[in-house]
Amino acid sequence: MNQEQHQQLRDIFSTYFPLSPQTEPHLRAALHSVLDNPGSLIRPQIVANMFTAFGLPALHATELGIALEYFHTASLLFDDLPCMDDATERRGQPSTYVEFGEAGAILAALALINRAYALTWKSVAGCGPAHQSEALEYVERYLGVGGLLNGQSMDLNYASLHGGHHVTEEIAMGKTVSLIRLTLVLPGILGGASPKELQLLDRIAVCWGLTYQIVDDLKDVLHTSEESGKTHSRDVSMGRPNIALAIGIPAAVERLTRLIAMGDRMLQRLVNQHPPVAFLQELRVQLDAEAKELIDTACDLSVLNSRPTSHQGVA
Amino acid sequence: MNQEQHQQLRDIFSTYFPLSPQTEPHLRAALHSVLDNPGSLIRPQIVANMFTAFGLPALHATELGIALEYFHTASLLFDDLPCMDDATERRGQPSTYVEFGEAGAILAALALINRAYALTWKSVAGCGPAHQSEALEYVERYLGVGGLLNGQSMDLNYASLHGGHHVTEEIAMGKTVSLIRLTLVLPGILGGASPKELQLLDRIAVCWGLTYQIVDDLKDVLHTSEESGKTHSRDVSMGRPNIALAIGIPAAVERLTRLIAMGDRMLQRLVNQHPPVAFLQELRVQLDAEAKELIDTACDLSVLNSRPTSHQGVA
Repeated sequence: MNQEQHQQLRDIFSTYFPLSPQTEPHLRAALHSVLDNPGSLIRPQIVANMFTAFGLPALHATELGIALEYFHTASLLFDDLPCMDDATERRGQPSTYVEFGEAGAILAALALINRAYALTWKSVAGCGPAHQSEALEYVERYLGVGGLLNGQSMDLNYASLHGGHHVTEEIAMGKTVSLIRLTLVLPGILGGASPKELQLLDRIAVCWGLTYQIVDDLKDVLHTSEESGKTHSRDVSMGRPNIALAIGIPAAVERLTRLIAMGDRMLQRLVNQHPPVAFLQELRVQLDAEAKELIDTACDLSVLNSRPTSHQGVA
Repeated sequence: MNQEQHQQLRDIFSTYFPLSPQTEPHLRAALHSVLDNPGSLIRPQIVANMFTAFGLPALHATELGIALEYFHTASLLFDDLPCMDDATERRGQPSTYVEFGEAGAILAALALINRAYALTWKSVAGCGPAHQSEALEYVERYLGVGGLLNGQSMDLNYASLHGGHHVTEEIAMGKTVSLIRLTLVLPGILGGASPKELQLLDRIAVCWGLTYQIVDDLKDVLHTSEESGKTHSRDVSMGRPNIALAIGIPAAVERLTRLIAMGDRMLQRLVNQHPPVAFLQELRVQLDAEAKELIDTACDLSVLNSRPTSHQGVA
């Protein structure tokens, strides 16, 4: 995505939420602040390419892509609340609740969610009834207690779930994989992808989501060590789920390598079946580059032998 | 609604939210508790009668009625949070956040909202595309920053809005009228009601919503005086919007009387246009009975002269 495209997406992210002068000033200010500070906007970009790959209209791609970005943004607003992750900063700025109060952050998040459901519905309105209902059930499942909300609840209650590696990965399936699933699989459903293609898209979403999570968890453990010399990572000190802590760094690196290879195989099969999705290979390269860097760091630091290998070992 | 019908609705309220054993135990427990303790379930009952009156299928009436009840229930879970109304009790039980933590209450509310949007979609799926899109835009508007969320934000920031009577009524339009609008007008939209009928339904929703709010506000002021002998109501002590405090009890009683009469005229016109909605007259009688009782109380207590007549007067 070049700079011009990115700016265009930033504008759309902001203008797709129409704010009237009648909106209560505090709520309007909170929403303005959120809408003026988007994240990477990778989801709308992928959805746009997926829609093109499956011959779907660009307008509906924008609607769905922005909807997913609003859902994601709302989930961050909730995550940052004191009763959840209690994060006072996000993207280098004070968290929404710090600036606009907890109630302000909650109402802004609910407003984003309300708009996101409306946009999702608009984006599927032109499809046949069977695809529509399949797509909307998929949305319900992965945003709800079968996906994102379940992952968040497991994350918050991690200490009481006593599941180690298994629970850590289930949390990632809920929190990280769900939105990637919606980004990759939904356009396939709407575009009439075959069951085989949908299965491949689903597996790619799982491989990439878990890869992303392990990369993130390794970063926490390795960079803590590298940058500050501390032996305890942020995840350890906060008792947060971290796969590298749950199964140890060597096993996490091995799992990462396997997931990347598995994702590659699935993606190659998918491209063979439906060549227009070849654009996904670029995304995969990005993910791989970051993973490789981390694996190198792990080796450089020779932490494979010296680091603690489980929560038990460092608690 | 007889007891058997009410029990049936209670069962539906609970079973329309399928909870799997995979759901994280804390989230499942919070949802169970919420689903086992419904409110009056008046919304599903009205929607069912409205669907019959406009020749729409009963299955979709249940979906929409339960969806509106889930939206309403979620709004109560949020309202009770410490950062909003800070209410430790609801329907004689500890609030959800008291029992399951703030994060538990928030996630349960989001799960209800997610299910409610899915049920709303299902309920409109059988209608023509034009009615569908009009209905879903209506849902977005009155749940979002044009309705419920705006009302809640004005309510929370009441002290800083300095609008007196005007603001008090706008809050009621957002918080109270929005869900009544969805209950009365949505079935009309889906059932192909004429623009005149829709306008009458909308005005009835406004009259009834504001009536309900004034009744509630008068109760706060009058029953406080009657039951506890205190001169300050809960709304006064908490700086909450209250129309009887904003314009004084005599003016509030007058406005209440005018709104009831206006609602009656609109309802009579609507029944003339579309006789199957005559069932609404029973609801109106209920509302009227409660209002009459309050007006009598106001007179009995002779508070018309002795009570403070504005926030300014009692602050």
